[in-house]
Amino acid sequence: MKQNPESNQRIDSIHSTVGIVGGGQLAKMLAHAAYTLGCQVFMLVRERPFPADSLDTRCVVGDWNDPGVLVAFARDVDVVMLESEFVDAHALEALEKAGCSLCPSAATVRCVQDKLLQKTAMAEHGLAVPAFRDTPTPNDVLAAGEEFGWPIVLKKRRNGYDGKGNALVESEADIEAAWHQLDGDRSALFADAFCPFVRELAMIITRAADGTTAPYPLVESRQEDHICKEILVPAPVHQELARRAQRIAEQAVLAVNGTGSFGIELFELADGNILINELAPRVHNTGHYSIEACDCSQFENHVRAVLGLPLGSTALRRPAAAMVNVLASVDGSGRAEGFAEALAVSGAHVHLYGKHEARVGRKMGHVTALGEDIDTALRSARTAASNIRFVADGSASEGSRGHRFTDGASGT
Amino acid sequence: MKQNPESNQRIDSIHSTVGIVGGGQLAKMLAHAAYTLGCQVFMLVRERPFPADSLDTRCVVGDWNDPGVLVAFARDVDVVMLESEFVDAHALEALEKAGCSLCPSAATVRCVQDKLLQKTAMAEHGLAVPAFRDTPTPNDVLAAGEEFGWPIVLKKRRNGYDGKGNALVESEADIEAAWHQLDGDRSALFADAFCPFVRELAMIITRAADGTTAPYPLVESRQEDHICKEILVPAPVHQELARRAQRIAEQAVLAVNGTGSFGIELFELADGNILINELAPRVHNTGHYSIEACDCSQFENHVRAVLGLPLGSTALRRPAAAMVNVLASVDGSGRAEGFAEALAVSGAHVHLYGKHEARVGRKMGHVTALGEDIDTALRSARTAASNIRFVADGSASEGSRGHRFTDGASGT
Repeated sequence: MKQNPESNQRIDSIHSTVGIVGGGQLAKMLAHAAYTLGCQVFMLVRERPFPADSLDTRCVVGDWNDPGVLVAFARDVDVVMLESEFVDAHALEALEKAGCSLCPSAATVRCVQDKLLQKTAMAEHGLAVPAFRDTPTPNDVLAAGEEFGWPIVLKKRRNGYDGKGNALVESEADIEAAWHQLDGDRSALFADAFCPFVRELAMIITRAADGTTAPYPLVESRQEDHICKEILVPAPVHQELARRAQRIAEQAVLAVNGTGSFGIELFELADGNILINELAPRVHNTGHYSIEACDCSQFENHVRAVLGLPLGSTALRRPAAAMVNVLASVDGSGRAEGFAEALAVSGAHVHLYGKHEARVGRKMGHVTALGEDIDTALRSARTAASNIRFVADGSASEGSRGHRFTDGASGT
Repeated sequence: MKQNPESNQRIDSIHSTVGIVGGGQLAKMLAHAAYTLGCQVFMLVRERPFPADSLDTRCVVGDWNDPGVLVAFARDVDVVMLESEFVDAHALEALEKAGCSLCPSAATVRCVQDKLLQKTAMAEHGLAVPAFRDTPTPNDVLAAGEEFGWPIVLKKRRNGYDGKGNALVESEADIEAAWHQLDGDRSALFADAFCPFVRELAMIITRAADGTTAPYPLVESRQEDHICKEILVPAPVHQELARRAQRIAEQAVLAVNGTGSFGIELFELADGNILINELAPRVHNTGHYSIEACDCSQFENHVRAVLGLPLGSTALRRPAAAMVNVLASVDGSGRAEGFAEALAVSGAHVHLYGKHEARVGRKMGHVTALGEDIDTALRSARTAASNIRFVADGSASEGSRGHRFTDGASGT
């Protein structure tokens, strides 16, 4: 129930109150969807400001890994959702023990947030993944290299994303450096065999509590430096491969007893085989295109699943779509220039997340374009995205501001 | 700039802060669009709770017709938008005199909010409207009937909507009753000739400050008891008529020097002529379909126009669309039943406004469906809308609640 900050009077909501742990761009887009379904949204965040902070009805600032904080937050809402899987599993279990609602479940998140447990679950369910083994010591890394052949990929079991928790190990000589890069003495690590994929694919699957699934189109994901750069919709593959990928993705979500929207990343091999790369038990960058491209976005379907509402159609509205991430190329202010120019590109849907700081490679927004074919959509999205620039620290550029009102609201 | 209720610390926004006068469903949908453009949204409302109240970053409760209240609100935002044209024109002028920004302008709103001034502006610009005349006294009503022929329509000059400010006068004998029904001694009235239209059409036009316009598809509007019931997109008319209608609509907006999204309602006569029925200087019920059906909705384009950003494409994403209003058929609680069933209709986009009270005929939400053709879209929208029911006062219906979480958040 919402607090009225003016009068401290509790206002009863007609509909549900959902809680989101986190206040980044995923929380922002989830909140947007929740509002269209008539919900109120409370957010639990670590600090202010945060990208989604104009979107929350109320927010709590605290440490979501602290069971006390998480449970108190959960008691104020009807159900808790996560924008990141990296919430302490003990805290999530405490939330459920306290009788509060969480989706997906603590057990699911515990399994998925640890990549070793995640891959083990995939393998146990007969789903193909690149060979992997636990590497508690540098010697185990050597053993992995000797078993799989070099190179191998050393990875953090938890808290790694956008490539930050990975290190390529090309030979025995590289082990020590990689071990220290990933802080192996304090972080649990494991090793993957190197996967010689020809293409990276992805799919969002939303699974309802009753087991029904809403599979999204298979997409092609183009990465650069381990960060998603562009998404092509639908993936230009044969229907047979797309069907296979869908079955694999659905089984993966089932294998971890998942509910809500999941992002499944896949490798396509030269021989047409598909391996699972990894899962995220949440809405995912590879599915942002669905906001404009599909009848029901990954965000709305996630909230529908969480609330026990029927899932919506994932059908494409136009034959093709493309999403281009807007990544900062400088460290500096979060103020975007060229927003107006980007908006002027016909059919470009420009999303800026409102992050106050730009860092090189940081995801600051994305652009989605729909079209009759992928080339057209990609061209529009790329053109629009290319207009957006961030101001480096120490270099003011008053003359090139794309947005007339950027002065009015900022004192910096 | 946003106040942090927790610490009373001013937080600078990266982007603009827009103010909306009003907190109803139009404010809610405007706010949604403003957030996607990175804005914060403050709202000025008369009372709490209000439908959009989970969507505001901050709200002020006060009388927007009071120049002091309106100016204070305007000073806290970069620009003010209206969800209703019925804001006192003096207060709007005070806002502009205080150096604050308002869109559309006070002069435009003053002209449009008074139907007599509005029609006079149309006529002065050579745009066809049904014959009309001012009726300061009942005798003038008689003169109108004698000039135009019976019946005539007696109307309030200001503050009338959804037929509430109209009375059909079939003969001299009806004048007195109609005069009193519309409180003619205290409300300024005028008379329209009765218009024997064969169809009601409508179009949204967004006009930018630099004069560029983004015309939306012409739609057919089906009304019942003076309230919009269904919208068919695009209107099933010949292209030539649609082009004529567009020119008329654009000229109408130009005639009142309008900026932002405008809703233009038109009459189609048996001979194919088009007359202007009325204008609204704001986003309009007849344009809600544009949220899903068009690349850029009337709401987003309104905010773009207000902020000086390039207008977005109004192209339809699918060949057809239909919108069905969800009107309450009882007086009672605002709690909707059948929401889940409505959502289960494939392709139905269900919008519930979150009004706390239902009154017979009150607009409680709408459903939009896209499709290959109008019949398919209309069928989906009608099916979904037909599932939604409101609970009459004094009749609890626990067993048929469509939404699992309606209990959790409400204490009533």
